[in-house]
Amino acid sequence: MSPFRGSVGFTEEWKHFRLERADNIATLTFNRPDKLNALTFQAYADLRDLLAELPHRNDTRVLVLHGEGRGFCSGGDVNEIIGLTLRMGTDQLLAFTRMTGEVVRAMRECPVPIVAALHGMTAGAGAVLALAADFRIATPSAKFAFLFTKVGLSGADMGAAYLLPRMIGVGRATELLMLGDTLDAETAERYGLVSQLVPEEALSERVTMLARRLADGPFQAYASTKAVISRELDMGLSASLELDATTQALLMHGEDYREFHAAFTGKRPPKWQGR
Amino acid sequence: MSPFRGSVGFTEEWKHFRLERADNIATLTFNRPDKLNALTFQAYADLRDLLAELPHRNDTRVLVLHGEGRGFCSGGDVNEIIGLTLRMGTDQLLAFTRMTGEVVRAMRECPVPIVAALHGMTAGAGAVLALAADFRIATPSAKFAFLFTKVGLSGADMGAAYLLPRMIGVGRATELLMLGDTLDAETAERYGLVSQLVPEEALSERVTMLARRLADGPFQAYASTKAVISRELDMGLSASLELDATTQALLMHGEDYREFHAAFTGKRPPKWQGR
Amino acid sequence: MSPFRGSVGFTEEWKHFRLERADNIATLTFNRPDKLNALTFQAYADLRDLLAELPHRNDTRVLVLHGEGRGFCSGGDVNEIIGLTLRMGTDQLLAFTRMTGEVVRAMRECPVPIVAALHGMTAGAGAVLALAADFRIATPSAKFAFLFTKVGLSGADMGAAYLLPRMIGVGRATELLMLGDTLDAETAERYGLVSQLVPEEALSERVTMLARRLADGPFQAYASTKAVISRELDMGLSASLELDATTQALLMHGEDYREFHAAFTGKRPPKWQGR
Repeated sequence: MSPFRGSVGFTEEWKHFRLERADNIATLTFNRPDKLNALTFQAYADLRDLLAELPHRNDTRVLVLHGEGRGFCSGGDVNEIIGLTLRMGTDQLLAFTRMTGEVVRAMRECPVPIVAALHGMTAGAGAVLALAADFRIATPSAKFAFLFTKVGLSGADMGAAYLLPRMIGVGRATELLMLGDTLDAETAERYGLVSQLVPEEALSERVTMLARRLADGPFQAYASTKAVISRELDMGLSASLELDATTQALLMHGEDYREFHAAFTGKRPPKWQGR
Repeated sequence: MSPFRGSVGFTEEWKHFRLERADNIATLTFNRPDKLNALTFQAYADLRDLLAELPHRNDTRVLVLHGEGRGFCSGGDVNEIIGLTLRMGTDQLLAFTRMTGEVVRAMRECPVPIVAALHGMTAGAGAVLALAADFRIATPSAKFAFLFTKVGLSGADMGAAYLLPRMIGVGRATELLMLGDTLDAETAERYGLVSQLVPEEALSERVTMLARRLADGPFQAYASTKAVISRELDMGLSASLELDATTQALLMHGEDYREFHAAFTGKRPPKWQGR
Repeated sequence: MSPFRGSVGFTEEWKHFRLERADNIATLTFNRPDKLNALTFQAYADLRDLLAELPHRNDTRVLVLHGEGRGFCSGGDVNEIIGLTLRMGTDQLLAFTRMTGEVVRAMRECPVPIVAALHGMTAGAGAVLALAADFRIATPSAKFAFLFTKVGLSGADMGAAYLLPRMIGVGRATELLMLGDTLDAETAERYGLVSQLVPEEALSERVTMLARRLADGPFQAYASTKAVISRELDMGLSASLELDATTQALLMHGEDYREFHAAFTGKRPPKWQGR
């Protein structure tokens, strides 16, 4: 556990998704399969709060996102979210849209790498959660739809208009966000939105392989890579080089760098400590 | 018409290209086919002024760019522009280059989506106009050439050095802008510079289909998607999430969002009002 | 030679790589083939100092990077660099990591275009040098590995976490930088990391062709294209358009623009002066 905790405890039960922890891997499963894992207000709140706690627990080196049933996540629930927001005032609407943005901010800024396992419907907020992950492993059944304009809203939802152009270029991002049409997995792989395209039956195994590798590897090296990539999207070259210089000097004082050298000269595989 | 008009009237006749308006679609056609639609000083001025007026008229929800004859647009006219600029002082040169930049700024910042219909020569300033559009529908005959260095000028013309790296990556953009070589339509599609590659004979129909869809759809949703994508290219993650949150809260008070919900629960297609 | 020189002389002998100059082309060859051209502290220092001098000499219009033997460059030498850094204090570590960043800054900001000729191992700092070049011509044998996490360090080394997402998108960049796995040349071309993929036996000829073209062409046009692309990665649209406007107005007063027009109207090829 982090030494920097005060009065606030950890949440032991997450009610709006399933969360399993084992061997430094946390696996979150959206588990409303009868609703194609549509998100509720409470699910967003749980995502926000889980991501805030995660870096403090020291028992999680990778977070995996799964969807139960026929798809990953179909986004905000039409009845439970759209219906209710129509009766909200400005203060409540802003509280809602800021909460959804907070989920994405936490995904991008938390040091824990995030792997999204994608199959079937990956739409709306579900598509943005996939986009905000660090790795997207998808099966041919995965269908991406940033469908916000189709419900009369802006394609700029939860950072999608910031993230998607930086992943697949502003031309393709404009088309996807403005029209909201569905993108198949093969095309998503060609665009660079999918990291690995794997057969349907191999999804679970391939996601576990990557999660295992991330959990067992040099955690500080992975975490700092993630932390710096996300920050340097917003930084100039000169400042980025200074951040790299200080980051790398810090890690050169770390145990894993020393361990690599000992292993290399000893002709044995390194035993990573993750610090 | 916009309620925010003072003394300035609208321009009813554009002399340096053809402009047709019908059913919320404005179609601009470069019409000097004997010159491969080379641009003159006056054509740039008309582009700048049209784009400034367009958002005030409220009768245009999409702008289509076409080229008459064998190609889209071959860029600045060698005789009428290069010849004259050689005799200009610094003040006039800057006034010219700033005007061309103003065209691109207006294309990127005006809320109206812009569709470029591309065939044949798409070169120099013509290539940058295509680049600054929101959608690029091209036929296999389309040839892109950012040929500025071939006339002894910088590849950084009219925002190309800003926009192209953000569309196809800085490596490919450097090659195209520094060398000025021609890029065929298939490769442009592979790079993400072309949104849709369509058969020669289908260009007009496919462009019309997209324009129709944009004109009949939820205009505020499209316009805000465009507005935010272009701004967030220059913004950090945290500010982008705040812009998304306020944008989305604003649109949740809009008529089209309410209409979507009514149509969805009524099991009928939505009738978009565009506000 | 630049008129803006004071007391500092030029370095005539570079000890830690081979440097040949001919007809405005400087060719740098990493020449420790028995060590797969691993870099030493001194090689980094020579790169930094060469790149600082280069723009002042006026006898170099393009810099070519080659690797002797079986590969381009395998990055920092495990024994000579990793071993020694393990015994360094914070001051020395920072001096080292800042020096490596200075090499990349100079590559991106020097006006001379840089062509990297890539074959075989292109790893660690070698991969970042390739990334920081303007053109990457590679053979099918080229293998890219941003392998920093594999030695327990951050993938954010020497600007890689800044440059790579801007070249191939943040999704693919995250995968390559976090995992450090090897990327083959075909995939690198597909991602936009390789500019030209050429047969093994054609590498030298194709690199020479490009270098010759750059050296004989309108140098100010090329140099300003490079200068502006690298700066506008860090700039907003409005400022970029102003930089383009002033850059282009400046070049319109240049000799090469005038020469283009004279050649065009005289129906002869231009004789570029490079100014």
